Amino acid sequence: MKDLLLIGIGPGDPRQVTYEAVDALRQASVFFVLDKSGDKDELVHLRKAILQRYRPEGGYRLVQVADPARDGRAEDYLGAVQDWHRQRAALYAQLIEQEVGDGETGAFLLWGEPTLYDSTLRVLGLVRERGVALRLQVIPGISSVQALAARHQVPLNRVGEPLTVLPGRRLAGQGQIDNVLVMLDGQCAFARLGDPGLMIYWGAYLGTADEVLIAGPLQAVKAQILEVRERERARKGWIMDSYLLRREL
Amino acid sequence: MKDLLLIGIGPGDPRQVTYEAVDALRQASVFFVLDKSGDKDELVHLRKAILQRYRPEGGYRLVQVADPARDGRAEDYLGAVQDWHRQRAALYAQLIEQEVGDGETGAFLLWGEPTLYDSTLRVLGLVRERGVALRLQVIPGISSVQALAARHQVPLNRVGEPLTVLPGRRLAGQGQIDNVLVMLDGQCAFARLGDPGLMIYWGAYLGTADEVLIAGPLQAVKAQILEVRERERARKGWIMDSYLLRREL
Repeated sequence: MKDLLLIGIGPGDPRQVTYEAVDALRQASVFFVLDKSGDKDELVHLRKAILQRYRPEGGYRLVQVADPARDGRAEDYLGAVQDWHRQRAALYAQLIEQEVGDGETGAFLLWGEPTLYDSTLRVLGLVRERGVALRLQVIPGISSVQALAARHQVPLNRVGEPLTVLPGRRLAGQGQIDNVLVMLDGQCAFARLGDPGLMIYWGAYLGTADEVLIAGPLQAVKAQILEVRERERARKGWIMDSYLLRREL
Repeated sequence: MKDLLLIGIGPGDPRQVTYEAVDALRQASVFFVLDKSGDKDELVHLRKAILQRYRPEGGYRLVQVADPARDGRAEDYLGAVQDWHRQRAALYAQLIEQEVGDGETGAFLLWGEPTLYDSTLRVLGLVRERGVALRLQVIPGISSVQALAARHQVPLNRVGEPLTVLPGRRLAGQGQIDNVLVMLDGQCAFARLGDPGLMIYWGAYLGTADEVLIAGPLQAVKAQILEVRERERARKGWIMDSYLLRREL
């Protein structure tokens, strides 16, 4: 039986980490750092900074491996994601078998909230299906959704109303757009909405020194968001952003 | 200008509080403890326990006032909520003017996440409309949504799909029920769903010593949830629960 911790470490600010998460990361013997692409080295550095802050004495191992890449051009999105998860499960199973010894605990430091648009829990389900016995513990973390609302000082929901959280690719197909929180929108789906009644609360690199916030009527500020987003993405080589869309009453 | 902190303190476990929240609560001179009813004294005690843990040396004031009650029998739900918010704004404006002196900082310790189904931010907007100048800071906290998913070790969303968060009263009117997270469901709306394809992941008093978790096919476990929920509510005098509904594929 392999002990594994899935630790939510918040959106980027090392102070937006819970005491529970720090207790957990102090128990781990080995940390798995798997990232999607080489050009996000900064995300690896930020994780190492969290470890240095909360485990300054060291005494742990860091296993840093490039995650297999997903076929972003595949016609069948869901199929491509499932293939990608299977490839990752094969890799994770091997790493866990090799690296987590008897009496040791492995850990994944996950951005934001481990159960929201993060596939590690799902991939570890596939690792179990491959016959690796796992004992998991999941530690919640502050998601970028929450950091966004806190920085804009705006409630995520209106009184008695639902909040919908969705990935950018689902925005076009969403019937009524109101109280919608959009993540993972590399295609800037917001820019194609013509509705004059929508407000947008946008943010990127939340909780870090590079944080950018823009809010206002969507039609009035969307060009500015596109411009700032492209400029920052070019400058840093990557971007993580999210936004809330709300209809003005 | 009055300085106010809205601090998310998580669902109940004092370890599920961020370092940012603790830094914030160490800055506050006065804490406002406003609760809906006298029978939830335990929630006041839990908050005091968090203060004793993170500010053991004291040096702050606690202003404990009963919040006005909402008219729960009103036909017009939204109107009743708006009336209630206005009454609270009048009370909060008075308390803030009286209690937060020059150079002092007031703070609200809020369960879960301050921007999700919590009205303090909205009420403080009405306080501003009454002419009280406020400088706010909002500190995100782990919501019961996240604690629920972590304890059940279940992702909140399926790959590429939306997550809907809604209050119990909106469940019956929700078209497709899938990846729906329900909060504030005193009427047990889940029990009136007949769909045989739904799974439920339910939890109460998350993060506390009284935590209860039940998961399974909705039709198979709903009687058990109703029974446990009623028993615990009777035993403790109050209950806070939430659940995730997901369609099995």
